[in-house]
Amino acid sequence: MQIACVQMAPRIGEKDLNVRRAIDFVTRAADLGAELVVLPELANTGYVFDSRAEAESLAEPVPDGSTTAAWSEVASALGVYIVAGIAEKADGALYNSAVLLGPDGYLGSYRKTHLWGDEKKLFASGDRPSPIYDTPLGRIAIAICYDLWFPELFRLYALGGAQIVCVPTNWVPMPNQSADRPAMANTLAMAAAHTNGLVVACADRVGVERGQPFEGQSLVVDQSGWPVGDVASRSLEEIVSASITLDARTSVGTHNDVLADRRADIYGRIPAFDGH
Amino acid sequence: MQIACVQMAPRIGEKDLNVRRAIDFVTRAADLGAELVVLPELANTGYVFDSRAEAESLAEPVPDGSTTAAWSEVASALGVYIVAGIAEKADGALYNSAVLLGPDGYLGSYRKTHLWGDEKKLFASGDRPSPIYDTPLGRIAIAICYDLWFPELFRLYALGGAQIVCVPTNWVPMPNQSADRPAMANTLAMAAAHTNGLVVACADRVGVERGQPFEGQSLVVDQSGWPVGDVASRSLEEIVSASITLDARTSVGTHNDVLADRRADIYGRIPAFDGH
Repeated sequence: MQIACVQMAPRIGEKDLNVRRAIDFVTRAADLGAELVVLPELANTGYVFDSRAEAESLAEPVPDGSTTAAWSEVASALGVYIVAGIAEKADGALYNSAVLLGPDGYLGSYRKTHLWGDEKKLFASGDRPSPIYDTPLGRIAIAICYDLWFPELFRLYALGGAQIVCVPTNWVPMPNQSADRPAMANTLAMAAAHTNGLVVACADRVGVERGQPFEGQSLVVDQSGWPVGDVASRSLEEIVSASITLDARTSVGTHNDVLADRRADIYGRIPAFDGH
Repeated sequence: MQIACVQMAPRIGEKDLNVRRAIDFVTRAADLGAELVVLPELANTGYVFDSRAEAESLAEPVPDGSTTAAWSEVASALGVYIVAGIAEKADGALYNSAVLLGPDGYLGSYRKTHLWGDEKKLFASGDRPSPIYDTPLGRIAIAICYDLWFPELFRLYALGGAQIVCVPTNWVPMPNQSADRPAMANTLAMAAAHTNGLVVACADRVGVERGQPFEGQSLVVDQSGWPVGDVASRSLEEIVSASITLDARTSVGTHNDVLADRRADIYGRIPAFDGH
């Protein structure tokens, strides 16, 4: 299975441009053979809103908004699956969401459950995990950016049967860390993949927006915990493309399985999750 | 606070030699300024037992065994704390354990809760987490080797107030991974440290025992998630020494704390753990 992460630089507020450019990237990824394409967090709006009013003016209902419609159309036209970050408006609240679209259109969405920084002033938190979408490509779940700091969520997905977790993200440099270091989020994605036998595909944005730099370094990690191919650059728009195999990989040795070996008696049970 | 991880090569079955060599390493580490010294998993016996009978013949009661006595003596003499892997015998069962010793002698122990490979044929699993030992150096918990594959355990320790997790280990190359890769366990230690604001200090063994190679690459990771100083070699006996600061580091930004931001409503509550 061929997966692609689009590392692009949305421009704050320029939604039409961002939606169109995302479509161009998806088209290019499909030309390269991608069957599943991941776009960054808030790919249609940009990230650094100067007010809740600005965020609200850009957010859309899901799935009944123009961005979801436009991206669904390109998914159908190219016969690909897309996971893409989008600002969602619902019942007066805003959500930092991601949609899953396929050849037959809209499949579902996930609202970010762990909000980072000023997001807490703008967005409501989602109140449930991503559904696990059983697609012809494999069983796909979604996490967004700071969700990576919570290995519990990836464990929940693995126990629920997910094979791939797509991660639209807008990684920012960690406070108190040298900017020369690789993104710590790459380490977290590798650990989440290895300890759960998951493919983890992270599409980060690049650029500097209203003074906020982003980290780039998008990557696809396979079940071994290692990136497949190169990690993307820190600052360039580019596509990370990887060929992955979705065999069951929670076994880490003849006598060991990272899910079966869990000791719920010690650190608690993760609630039963059937993926819905 | 100065911490040292002793990367050494115990010899299977040569307990007197291993205990004495461990004391030499602890002495050297103390000479270098270490206040807390971590030794590998099963540092007194070696790892690749050819039978349960062999393991049983080498295992000792804890704390009433000769190894604990000898290592307690050096801890007292040098005024240091030691965390060291040891084969424990209790009530007819064997445990892959680690002891914590201090200037005043034996403080406690932990029995490995996640057993790797053939360990399941030899050892019983521990049935509780490491206590969190409140020492003058800081609040210390213990994990052993494959425990690193279970981020739940490190979360439990962090929520219980641990500041340092000492990891005696005998990392083996992961099945189906190129031997050229760095130890995946280093990635797991980094993720555990960063996502919990913990210091994670891993003392691995080196050498090849009865055909089983070990990974080396001992390291001390601070709360940022990055190794302090160099990661040890793959094959040499050496001491990794690091200066660490035990301030509270679960904050990862102005508005975020990796413990407070957990969503127990989504992936379940980790049981209340007061460290005992």
